[in-house]
Amino acid sequence: MNTGLFLQLQRETEVMATAATATAAAEATATEVSNKQVILKNYVSGFPKESDMEVRTTRIRLKLPEASSNAILVKNLYLSCDPYMRGRMNNSQQSYIQSFTPGSPLTGYGVAKVLDSTHQDFKKDDLIWGHTGWEEYSIITTTESLFKIQHSHDDIPLSYYTGILGMPGMTAYGGFYELCSPKKGETVFVSAASGAVGQLVGQFAKILGCYVVGSAGTQEKVDLLKNKLGFDDAFNYKEEPDLNAALKRYFPDGIDIYFENVGGKMLDAVLVNMRVHGRISVCGMISQYNLNETEGVHNLMNIVMKQIRMEGFLVFKYYHLYPKFLEMVLAKIRDGSITYVEDVVQGLENAPAALVGLFSGRNVGKQVVALDIDSNN
Amino acid sequence: MNTGLFLQLQRETEVMATAATATAAAEATATEVSNKQVILKNYVSGFPKESDMEVRTTRIRLKLPEASSNAILVKNLYLSCDPYMRGRMNNSQQSYIQSFTPGSPLTGYGVAKVLDSTHQDFKKDDLIWGHTGWEEYSIITTTESLFKIQHSHDDIPLSYYTGILGMPGMTAYGGFYELCSPKKGETVFVSAASGAVGQLVGQFAKILGCYVVGSAGTQEKVDLLKNKLGFDDAFNYKEEPDLNAALKRYFPDGIDIYFENVGGKMLDAVLVNMRVHGRISVCGMISQYNLNETEGVHNLMNIVMKQIRMEGFLVFKYYHLYPKFLEMVLAKIRDGSITYVEDVVQGLENAPAALVGLFSGRNVGKQVVALDIDSNN
Repeated sequence: MNTGLFLQLQRETEVMATAATATAAAEATATEVSNKQVILKNYVSGFPKESDMEVRTTRIRLKLPEASSNAILVKNLYLSCDPYMRGRMNNSQQSYIQSFTPGSPLTGYGVAKVLDSTHQDFKKDDLIWGHTGWEEYSIITTTESLFKIQHSHDDIPLSYYTGILGMPGMTAYGGFYELCSPKKGETVFVSAASGAVGQLVGQFAKILGCYVVGSAGTQEKVDLLKNKLGFDDAFNYKEEPDLNAALKRYFPDGIDIYFENVGGKMLDAVLVNMRVHGRISVCGMISQYNLNETEGVHNLMNIVMKQIRMEGFLVFKYYHLYPKFLEMVLAKIRDGSITYVEDVVQGLENAPAALVGLFSGRNVGKQVVALDIDSNN
Repeated sequence: MNTGLFLQLQRETEVMATAATATAAAEATATEVSNKQVILKNYVSGFPKESDMEVRTTRIRLKLPEASSNAILVKNLYLSCDPYMRGRMNNSQQSYIQSFTPGSPLTGYGVAKVLDSTHQDFKKDDLIWGHTGWEEYSIITTTESLFKIQHSHDDIPLSYYTGILGMPGMTAYGGFYELCSPKKGETVFVSAASGAVGQLVGQFAKILGCYVVGSAGTQEKVDLLKNKLGFDDAFNYKEEPDLNAALKRYFPDGIDIYFENVGGKMLDAVLVNMRVHGRISVCGMISQYNLNETEGVHNLMNIVMKQIRMEGFLVFKYYHLYPKFLEMVLAKIRDGSITYVEDVVQGLENAPAALVGLFSGRNVGKQVVALDIDSNN
């Protein structure tokens, strides 16, 4: 549910524009293939719809232009659907949100395989995760933000690098362990708890010895939280007419740590139920992204009375911890102490529906789009 | 403008109740004198009115009961009017706010002189500041939270121990220097800037080399901020139809630090104008205290996008720094680099109007009530 990619995105979107130019200029003799793309048709207001996007097919040569340097040509394998992408569909004037460009492919996190490279750090057949295009093939010219995937773990699904082993994983890790200063025995509440980030925050908190409750929007998700993801308890916020009362039921002595993914009414109810010296890690506010006017939050005076620290963060802040994080989390996946739930749809043509579905909570677990890995190559 | 005395107040209100019992039990032979008191008639909703309080006169013997131990009998010299006191006029169920007791005197910070003591740390004629009753004479049986005033500085008004040298001073010092991690050259915005706390935050920030702008509610206060208190600029929020535009005018590159005293619409406008990695020190929200339903704050998503830390505090947290603070601030008062503006009314009978006046912004500077120091003793 992390929203915080805005600062970095400006540069990366420029990358894609450069890539298109480079492609057009290419005079390679290599195979030219079709390249399916998901295009944003126009800026969006309110809830995004599938029809705000269209799938179109262009052509691409599977070789970088001779003149290119420090570029890679990749085949995209998995694309990540993340709530922060909604902000990029706005025609925003705010400099820290780089909007998508109508008429061009969306961009986002993904896992990809290098087909050609003029960059010394990347070679053919390398696997990478990072920012790429919503298309079958992309040329990436700014590679600083890409992570190379080591081939040493065939037991781990590659798609995990869109989630637990990628940006959402680092979001959960940094936003919980680093920002919240959690201690054993503390009470932790996670909203959007079955999502890409929330399910990890809850499991990290359990590993530390916290009491953890999550909220989600269907009974299926609540069951998942309790039976598969190890939360102490969970509830369906859509069936709670009084969120304040619901939180009091699960946290009779109050909440030490709130991992905020939703905003609005839930935040208001949480503020009333926080304990003295509570911490609120503000990762995102998905309930507000599609509203033309956001809900007002009324209970902020609790921040004073309970000496609460409420802090927002962007995941980039924690990327220097990635090697340490990766070692920890791979070990925990292998020993079974961490589970990860994905919702994988097949085919780029289903990507618009998958992205839109995030905002109605259709996905159960991390929403991933798997591209048809064998086509065209 | 600090609101954060709630945790400590429960114990202190008990003190007053005990004191009343002790007085009743006294069989001293000392002079009995009249004791004027400000009584809360009933719990308050909405804006407090003078008629919510009444001044009545009882009798008190100016000697502690023989059986008392660890108590002091004081003559109150100055009483402090503070916004947090509004919360104590509510019939609150919240355990961290101890309400005043209708039918009994209000309590609050004050400066007093010891007339009698059965406590080894205090002797006759000592001067103290701390929590006392809104009356001419009080018996205080819990003395842990009192500070003894050293007599070594006759050049400093005693009333300053209700303000710059007391709780509001520590509030400004801790809430700005400790909580905000300010750096030279940063931009600082202070709301309620001519108040007991705000005027000090602004001066502390200037001493550090920050650019400081304050808001206040009259032209007189704005002039005070600019001409006497050394703010770089100031504006009258009541004459700004668009607070967002006003802040953009004074902070074209955004706000690094906001010292929050008012809440509501001002907070919403500030959030939009904060810079990346900004800090909001939440001291109080006086604009909201008299509303039956508080205003909703809509722009909290900025906390994520700009990685803002918003933190509430209670002044007690910083009291261990008092000796260091006192040394620094006395030197700065003496060398003229810090000024303090008080609004002193004379006589306990004028205390209800003075307290009520805080919420319409009638006071210019720290609101103090000076008792008639020569009467009855």
